[in-house]
Amino acid sequence: MDFIVHEQFQRKANEYKRPLKHTKAVPVRTVGIVEDAAAFQGLRAEGVGVPQLPLCMNVGDSVILDFGDHFVGYLHFSLNHYQTHITDSPVMFRFTFGEKPLEVITPAEKYKGTHTYGWLQEEIKTVVFTPYTGSLERRYAFRYLKIERVDGARFPVCFTDIFVDAVSAVDLGDVAPFDIPDPMLQRIYHMSLNTLKECEQDVFEDGPKRDRRLWIGDLRLQAMTDYVSFGNVDLIKRCIYLFAAYRTGGGFVPSCIFVDSPPYVDTWWFSDYSLFFISCLYDYARNVDDRAFVEEMYDTAEEQFRLVSATLDRENKRFQSNVMAHVDWCPGMDKSVAHLGVYVYTLKQLLWLAEYLGKPTADIAVAIDEASDMLRSYYDADRHLFVTASGQVSWQSQIFGVLSGVLTDEQNAAVLQAIEASDTPYTVRTPYMMHYYIDALWGLGQKERAMQKMKDYWSVFVHYGFDCCPELYNPDDHFMSPYFKASEADSMCHAWSCTPAYWIYRYYREA
Amino acid sequence: MDFIVHEQFQRKANEYKRPLKHTKAVPVRTVGIVEDAAAFQGLRAEGVGVPQLPLCMNVGDSVILDFGDHFVGYLHFSLNHYQTHITDSPVMFRFTFGEKPLEVITPAEKYKGTHTYGWLQEEIKTVVFTPYTGSLERRYAFRYLKIERVDGARFPVCFTDIFVDAVSAVDLGDVAPFDIPDPMLQRIYHMSLNTLKECEQDVFEDGPKRDRRLWIGDLRLQAMTDYVSFGNVDLIKRCIYLFAAYRTGGGFVPSCIFVDSPPYVDTWWFSDYSLFFISCLYDYARNVDDRAFVEEMYDTAEEQFRLVSATLDRENKRFQSNVMAHVDWCPGMDKSVAHLGVYVYTLKQLLWLAEYLGKPTADIAVAIDEASDMLRSYYDADRHLFVTASGQVSWQSQIFGVLSGVLTDEQNAAVLQAIEASDTPYTVRTPYMMHYYIDALWGLGQKERAMQKMKDYWSVFVHYGFDCCPELYNPDDHFMSPYFKASEADSMCHAWSCTPAYWIYRYYREA
Repeated sequence: MDFIVHEQFQRKANEYKRPLKHTKAVPVRTVGIVEDAAAFQGLRAEGVGVPQLPLCMNVGDSVILDFGDHFVGYLHFSLNHYQTHITDSPVMFRFTFGEKPLEVITPAEKYKGTHTYGWLQEEIKTVVFTPYTGSLERRYAFRYLKIERVDGARFPVCFTDIFVDAVSAVDLGDVAPFDIPDPMLQRIYHMSLNTLKECEQDVFEDGPKRDRRLWIGDLRLQAMTDYVSFGNVDLIKRCIYLFAAYRTGGGFVPSCIFVDSPPYVDTWWFSDYSLFFISCLYDYARNVDDRAFVEEMYDTAEEQFRLVSATLDRENKRFQSNVMAHVDWCPGMDKSVAHLGVYVYTLKQLLWLAEYLGKPTADIAVAIDEASDMLRSYYDADRHLFVTASGQVSWQSQIFGVLSGVLTDEQNAAVLQAIEASDTPYTVRTPYMMHYYIDALWGLGQKERAMQKMKDYWSVFVHYGFDCCPELYNPDDHFMSPYFKASEADSMCHAWSCTPAYWIYRYYREA
Repeated sequence: MDFIVHEQFQRKANEYKRPLKHTKAVPVRTVGIVEDAAAFQGLRAEGVGVPQLPLCMNVGDSVILDFGDHFVGYLHFSLNHYQTHITDSPVMFRFTFGEKPLEVITPAEKYKGTHTYGWLQEEIKTVVFTPYTGSLERRYAFRYLKIERVDGARFPVCFTDIFVDAVSAVDLGDVAPFDIPDPMLQRIYHMSLNTLKECEQDVFEDGPKRDRRLWIGDLRLQAMTDYVSFGNVDLIKRCIYLFAAYRTGGGFVPSCIFVDSPPYVDTWWFSDYSLFFISCLYDYARNVDDRAFVEEMYDTAEEQFRLVSATLDRENKRFQSNVMAHVDWCPGMDKSVAHLGVYVYTLKQLLWLAEYLGKPTADIAVAIDEASDMLRSYYDADRHLFVTASGQVSWQSQIFGVLSGVLTDEQNAAVLQAIEASDTPYTVRTPYMMHYYIDALWGLGQKERAMQKMKDYWSVFVHYGFDCCPELYNPDDHFMSPYFKASEADSMCHAWSCTPAYWIYRYYREA
């Protein structure tokens, strides 16, 4: 795929690169993984002891260390021997890192996922001489670490030091505390912030374990949450510059950028994700007093509108059928109406930006009217639902239909009520979509209901004792994975799940 | 085991540490390993192409690179991708290094040796982002390198650079050339020097692949050869200091030192190896004009004589039965007579050193006489053979019996003739022992015969196209290993095999 680099924005993006913060974390207990029907995936990490250094291991020995929380970083360790018998034979350890218990008890050779098992966090290290002090080169995201002695030398070797050099762009201590009277919301808030913290690295990563990339759909949600917590505006600015810097051959803002690996621009392109560049800039302008930057980025935002607008199939009142949109992960869902919804939703933000900067607004206003008419044509006033041309009813169509604001508030409220009463299989599947559902409720003034929905969804993670919010959660199948039987590869710390911190902040601080 | 450190000698040893020389080597061809009954172990590396960069590999691809010679060093490489599809999935390569073809085609999981498979030179490297430039941490000894792409990501990844940063304390170019008219001896000479070069690192290593230690039996032979080739006197001095610095609890010079791994002193202790400290110092004094150093080390040498002397069982005319000796690898061999032989052989060197330095000689002379009498008591004048108290005849008893010089030259010549006519199963099994056999012949003036024996033994390695001389060679079983079915772990570059360069030098330069 061809792509375009705007060197000036690339340079600016690099100027906003900041050093990461380093903290040192040590294992707090040794655990065994036991079966427990009440636990997530039926597996629970049960404390069996306190790690004592030196931690000596013979061949065949294994230990699972629990670092007590989710960390993103680099493993450092020292080894020594305490025996005078021949000790220069190389020794080998297998390190298996896991965000959740399943990962440390599933051997890599059993992995059947469609994603490469390169994503599995496993490494065998051979150490020729002890004493040895070294580290593993790869960055890991984990809470649990299984260590197995896998060579054949007949003497014990001992860890005399073991710790993780944990990295993040931010520190939980930087967040101004506020009172959260509801204990469950307190815990959800902390988990959400922890998720955001773990994903804030050199860019806002999607998942620090798997999918270490900058996705714009996730960036938008991360940035929203960051404004009201860490306030890491430099990183947000850097990421917006990155999306302005690297474009598809057609000039679109890409869905995803590989910051560490040229050609930087992902081949997956989603039209709704290009439009979310507008949302990112809009949120920035609403949260940061930095008109110059908004001005600098405006052309890129407006260009997204013009490029996406050119892909409208006006006759059929939808985007051309070859134009991909993300909307949500939900197999079989007809995205056409939701796609139009995102279009109107973001164009209204663009209009606000144009007014803010004193730019021409006429074309935008015309486009909003045109698309609003299209969108309303899918509204079935009898059923109080948006129905696609194919006759499909989905939660996604309703949510983005409501957020587009093309109906009255009364109609919107009826839509959200009607979809709740429906039995459509096209439901909200991801925390990402859940956010927009909450947004839709909130926008109609249904704050209590919005908070309750959020609490219902995220409290399950608290219940299971997660450290961070996962990429996805299916109550009916804990092993469900987007990567076919590959729950070991799933991300248990995923950026698009972090927005409860945003909602809880708004709920208590704007009250 | 208790051990003693002489800090002054330890400090001096460190002072003689020198930086290694680095050279860069690249693969010269790609090969396939084919079966060939005429080849060593029935396996031959057959050229299939010339390595071209970028060397691109998909999952499942593998390639065997031939670096054209034996190298000791560190692998460096760069990776890149040339495809615009999603390329941030981690990629994994398995690197298998081999000194000989067998090693790169035998999967580690099939290894059945008694030595830990940590000695096998294999590593899996996971690279999260490309482009990537990095190296493997471990030092490898190899000629062949198999690379396999073992992840599951569906895009090619290419090596854009791959080389070995080869290290040695010496350079073949430092050796003054001389005319070697015999082409086979030329080739043996080069192979021997190459072996010595590869083993000369931070110390004189035994084998740079396996057994990366400083053994005194090997040191003696390496130093002998080095004096007439590289002339790396600093390294010899460093190693003698090391043996003087680290002692067993009883004050003995240990057989082996782990330079990189305290407590430095091996628990394997051989009395004959302690005595070879005298030989090392004797050779030094004969080759280097450095009386001060010889003076500094003399007490340690003399102490070895006194300590070993105290373990004589005078009644039974042998060393106490619990005193271990190495002599040679030859299961079932009765070492008692050979052990006495080494004792007298080295005491005569000590006497020379005492005279050289003007030290008292009386005790040494008495001890020589005493042990010579003992040794002669095992000489069967009818059979012209040394026979142990157990009635055993071995090559080892004859060789060290002859080298001790307790018989007349005529008797010695008859001994060597008689052992050749014998059918004892206790024969010369190692290049190490072969050296002393050649030494025995040479000492009796049988230079042509000595050279022929040497040529017969080492020309096999030339015939098989070895780059270096191996740890051992059994013409009847190419897979014989000291480590039980573990030929993959055997060293194909072993210091004690390097003495042909010494003999060839003497043969042509002293003629």
